[in-house]
Amino acid sequence: MQNITVALDAMGGDFGPRVTVPAAVQALSHFPELKVILIGDQNAITTQLSLLGYQPNARLSIQHADRVISNTEKPSLALRNHQGTSMGTALDLVADQQADACVSGGNTGALMALSRFKLKLLPGIERPALISALPTAAGNRTWMLDLGANVSSDADSLFQFAVMGSALVEQYLPSPPRVAILNIGAEEIKGNDLVKRCAEMLENTRSVNFVGYIEGNQLLHDAADVVVCDGFVGNVCLKTCEGTAQLFIDKLKSSMMSSSIKDWIARKLFSGLFNELKTLNPDQYNGASLLGLRGIVIKSHGNADVDAIINAVGEALHEVKRQVPSRISDRLEAVLLERHY
Amino acid sequence: MQNITVALDAMGGDFGPRVTVPAAVQALSHFPELKVILIGDQNAITTQLSLLGYQPNARLSIQHADRVISNTEKPSLALRNHQGTSMGTALDLVADQQADACVSGGNTGALMALSRFKLKLLPGIERPALISALPTAAGNRTWMLDLGANVSSDADSLFQFAVMGSALVEQYLPSPPRVAILNIGAEEIKGNDLVKRCAEMLENTRSVNFVGYIEGNQLLHDAADVVVCDGFVGNVCLKTCEGTAQLFIDKLKSSMMSSSIKDWIARKLFSGLFNELKTLNPDQYNGASLLGLRGIVIKSHGNADVDAIINAVGEALHEVKRQVPSRISDRLEAVLLERHY
Repeated sequence: MQNITVALDAMGGDFGPRVTVPAAVQALSHFPELKVILIGDQNAITTQLSLLGYQPNARLSIQHADRVISNTEKPSLALRNHQGTSMGTALDLVADQQADACVSGGNTGALMALSRFKLKLLPGIERPALISALPTAAGNRTWMLDLGANVSSDADSLFQFAVMGSALVEQYLPSPPRVAILNIGAEEIKGNDLVKRCAEMLENTRSVNFVGYIEGNQLLHDAADVVVCDGFVGNVCLKTCEGTAQLFIDKLKSSMMSSSIKDWIARKLFSGLFNELKTLNPDQYNGASLLGLRGIVIKSHGNADVDAIINAVGEALHEVKRQVPSRISDRLEAVLLERHY
Repeated sequence: MQNITVALDAMGGDFGPRVTVPAAVQALSHFPELKVILIGDQNAITTQLSLLGYQPNARLSIQHADRVISNTEKPSLALRNHQGTSMGTALDLVADQQADACVSGGNTGALMALSRFKLKLLPGIERPALISALPTAAGNRTWMLDLGANVSSDADSLFQFAVMGSALVEQYLPSPPRVAILNIGAEEIKGNDLVKRCAEMLENTRSVNFVGYIEGNQLLHDAADVVVCDGFVGNVCLKTCEGTAQLFIDKLKSSMMSSSIKDWIARKLFSGLFNELKTLNPDQYNGASLLGLRGIVIKSHGNADVDAIINAVGEALHEVKRQVPSRISDRLEAVLLERHY
């Protein structure tokens, strides 16, 4: 069995070592092939390990880092000032091939800027993109990118997102992923210049299974496997899904928490449905990938709990095994060849 | 009591006179001050009226129009070719002051282009915007604009949207509406140039109660009364709310439809909750206003049913009574004065 080493930014996210350390320890028993390097304040990490009665060993080591990049720090400042930070050090380990992937719940903008700087972009890629899976009505998944790695994009970038998303998702499906562009109407005449130009490029690319435009109301309804949009739209859209789902779950929950006997019966009857509805909350998924880099970087939610961080580590392992960056590279090369001849 | 005449495009929407005619007849009994002019194919309208045992009278008249603008027609073509169409004629009646407002469920792009052409923009407005109310967790409403009247916007337009939204919504609230910009983060450093420049303008405008940025997940959670965004983002976001809400309602419904006795009890217990959840579906609201024009135009959903069209007519009456266009004009003038001195 191949060992896979994940550099886990122990200080990233809202809860730091209190959550990342137990997550690392539990991930080790979940994934026998896993080795973890915890990066951050050595004292804080050691304290959390002791609370769990756990010691550093051949599969879990600590790399001290003095500083943490805050959530409000500008990416440009992080780029100048990353020496000795937990995020910067985690990415250095990947760049130096001491780790196979990096997982961080820290500042998204800084993670993207530092990843680009330290790991470099794949040839042919102008901007990395953040991709994640959303649950669908039929119990499948739809992957969406960009979820906010960029605040604006041009048609070339959007086209590259489509190619990268397709290369990632084809591993999970028996047939070529259906790739769609998120738009304000399904008709060809609808949309802004950005989506129209990207659609034209995709229509002329046989190696991507482009199925046209989809609208926001089809997003969770299995209309496509990969949905492409610019980072501003993707981020707003994902968070809108989360907020709407949360509202429904809260209503159901408050109805179930009500104290009358009638509701007690209902609560028993509906707990299965409640659990099913919870899985429709996109926030339950964790581990968005930063695609387009010469290395594997997984962004964990800032407020991820232990289970969510374990999911993010699982995503990292998966991408290492499938060699996602070189898959994307191969796919891009094929598309470029196709477009030139 | 002041009579208010609404020009109803009887052909617009997916169902045409089969739905618009019964809606007009029912609206007349709902709103004693209402007069309706039904515009469209005279035979089709008369047939539907006869089915209801209803005759044209002092409160309901028919204006024949030969043609219908299809949903796939480009706005530019509609602009050249609007003579004798039901939508064009309805707007002419408003322009000629034979009607106080127009309601149409037809092609949104064409409605926006023709409204601009026939009614003209208010002074100081560069682009009209589509605004509608969304239901919130606390049972209130949040108004959002632009919902897709424009496929792209500049900071000046976004700023004007904020002023127009505030002028519309202040009628409904006891205190000045909280106006927010939809963004990908709540921190000042987040977002693209568009939102940052608009935020700067709003921060320097005392007559708008600007409360900063909100993210997609706060949209239905009472964080602001007016949410401003460009038309592409707004349209995708609204439809994403609708799609997510629909998914939850479908799950609950299918669970309630299940045939076992256990579920029969649950169905009885949960029908109240189900009805409450349905009201959280933004699609239940109907009657988005096109703001920024020298006249009142209400866009009804293409697939609106009788009740939804009655809501749209109600919205038209409301805006006529409140003289929304001149309110917006006054508000804009105040803002311009404030910015110049």
